[in-house]
Amino acid sequence: MIPGEKTSLIMTQSNQIPHSDAAGSFDLTAYLAEKRRMIDRQMEQLIDEQGPPSRLHDAMHYSLMGKGKRLRPVLCIAAAEAVGEKTTPSVLRTACALEMIHTYSLIHDDLPAMDNDELRRGRPTCHIRFDEATAILAGDALLTLAFEVLAGCRPENGGEKQLKQLRVVSTIASAAGSQGMIEGQMRDMSAQGKQIDAGALKQIHAFKTGAMIEASVVSGALCGGGTDDQVDALSEYARNIGLAFQVADDILNVEGDPEIMGKSAGTDRMLQKATYPGLLGLEESKQYAKDLVANALQSLKIFDTEAAPLYAIAQYIVERNR
Amino acid sequence: MIPGEKTSLIMTQSNQIPHSDAAGSFDLTAYLAEKRRMIDRQMEQLIDEQGPPSRLHDAMHYSLMGKGKRLRPVLCIAAAEAVGEKTTPSVLRTACALEMIHTYSLIHDDLPAMDNDELRRGRPTCHIRFDEATAILAGDALLTLAFEVLAGCRPENGGEKQLKQLRVVSTIASAAGSQGMIEGQMRDMSAQGKQIDAGALKQIHAFKTGAMIEASVVSGALCGGGTDDQVDALSEYARNIGLAFQVADDILNVEGDPEIMGKSAGTDRMLQKATYPGLLGLEESKQYAKDLVANALQSLKIFDTEAAPLYAIAQYIVERNR
Repeated sequence: MIPGEKTSLIMTQSNQIPHSDAAGSFDLTAYLAEKRRMIDRQMEQLIDEQGPPSRLHDAMHYSLMGKGKRLRPVLCIAAAEAVGEKTTPSVLRTACALEMIHTYSLIHDDLPAMDNDELRRGRPTCHIRFDEATAILAGDALLTLAFEVLAGCRPENGGEKQLKQLRVVSTIASAAGSQGMIEGQMRDMSAQGKQIDAGALKQIHAFKTGAMIEASVVSGALCGGGTDDQVDALSEYARNIGLAFQVADDILNVEGDPEIMGKSAGTDRMLQKATYPGLLGLEESKQYAKDLVANALQSLKIFDTEAAPLYAIAQYIVERNR
Repeated sequence: MIPGEKTSLIMTQSNQIPHSDAAGSFDLTAYLAEKRRMIDRQMEQLIDEQGPPSRLHDAMHYSLMGKGKRLRPVLCIAAAEAVGEKTTPSVLRTACALEMIHTYSLIHDDLPAMDNDELRRGRPTCHIRFDEATAILAGDALLTLAFEVLAGCRPENGGEKQLKQLRVVSTIASAAGSQGMIEGQMRDMSAQGKQIDAGALKQIHAFKTGAMIEASVVSGALCGGGTDDQVDALSEYARNIGLAFQVADDILNVEGDPEIMGKSAGTDRMLQKATYPGLLGLEESKQYAKDLVANALQSLKIFDTEAAPLYAIAQYIVERNR
């Protein structure tokens, strides 16, 4: 495990990295720090705009401003860059909406009726810090706010972009809904304590985390005015890193330092959750994650140096330590 | 209490009804039956389109297709008619999205951590019929689907209407969120067992039910291409009937027949909930509801005969028996 987030983009397997020179000198640590600052500042502002302080707003703020990786919003911003768009207000708001949806899903998944987790991002979960009713409603409110924020993106150039914005809302809602993330949580819960194979596990993850990671990248590309070919290539990239992310998460759950991860190691085994290391073995899981990242990088080959952040993020996903 | 839904629109107080002739012969029973059929058929289809049957889809279907009044979607359709628009596919989809949001809020409000209700619309609540985790997720999924449906409305007339559709999404999300319906549920829960006055009660209802009823009417007017003056007049109408609806609900909770209402009478008193009959007395509450309806009808005076359904619905709200 390579500590920290810095990555040299030197691949350890046979697949060659396209454009490796372009991305080779890219400073991901600085990039992530800058984008996370922008995202956090914008999210603070969006919560502030919700009006006077209240228990509900406190709970939304508490969960949203926890120390998250901000993977989804960063992917959105990086995808917009890949198709040649800067981090405009529309792109940034879309990115924040994605993090709100991710956070709501964590709050609800942590509830006693679901995964019954007491620790998240190194702090008490929302229903422990507040109470169960407030946690349910704070999750609902973050999901709702996400769509308000998305609908409030008024791209400056009128008609054509308005249509794209409706497509962004559709894309994200579809990925977050009963054929995406929520179905993933249903399947994840019903698989607990059961024997499932690697195919079924891959499907659970495609729903639970893959769909929203793909939507993050696609919505960034749409906000940035990407062509159909670009959107397709970025979807392929996202499907691969989405799965790689989950495989890496399972590996971290076995090997990770609970201090750094902000949650206990070995909880998956305790909960009798099916994991890649459990099904494929630890070494094969690591190789699988690397192969997925190599596939992701292949699909970036139609892009120029603007895709450097996406290259680096793909690498980071399997090399991170939390 | 006038049984059934038929209303003659004969007012019992001093305020004169504008355009009463135009609305006098309007057959609300037939209108509601027709619109409810359209709404239910469209909602069935929208759930079917969500893909193969699953426990999650079953739970969404179960709660959505319960015997609801369909007040919000009917108001949306009637508001579109008031500004001269037929029930186009866009109007109908928007109407269905409103009912989905209403249904999700009922599922979550009924949860053990909130109002802990076991009966809703005459049947076991979602978490009783399924389980708590499924109920939380089915609510989440209906809320998410609502926004997917709204974003999928592609009004036929291009640019100008596309812009309106983003405003529809904003309007509904804002009313459903932490400055609207969800804050209302927070306040409602925290007021239980406490002494509050009529002003505080009115505020709770303005958040909890008023905001979404107003959004239903406004979104219908926007979908129908209403002018700013028309939208303003309809907002005023909606604020009055929204409050009237809640006052009438409190009266029904005291006087209603549990067989017809689908839930027990007297539950508010049992839960120590503040109600209008409790604060103002029963007779004064009835007069208050009638005055609110009269105000609502006044704000319809700028409309022609196309507003007949809105007249009739305002009357129905205080005369219904469930």
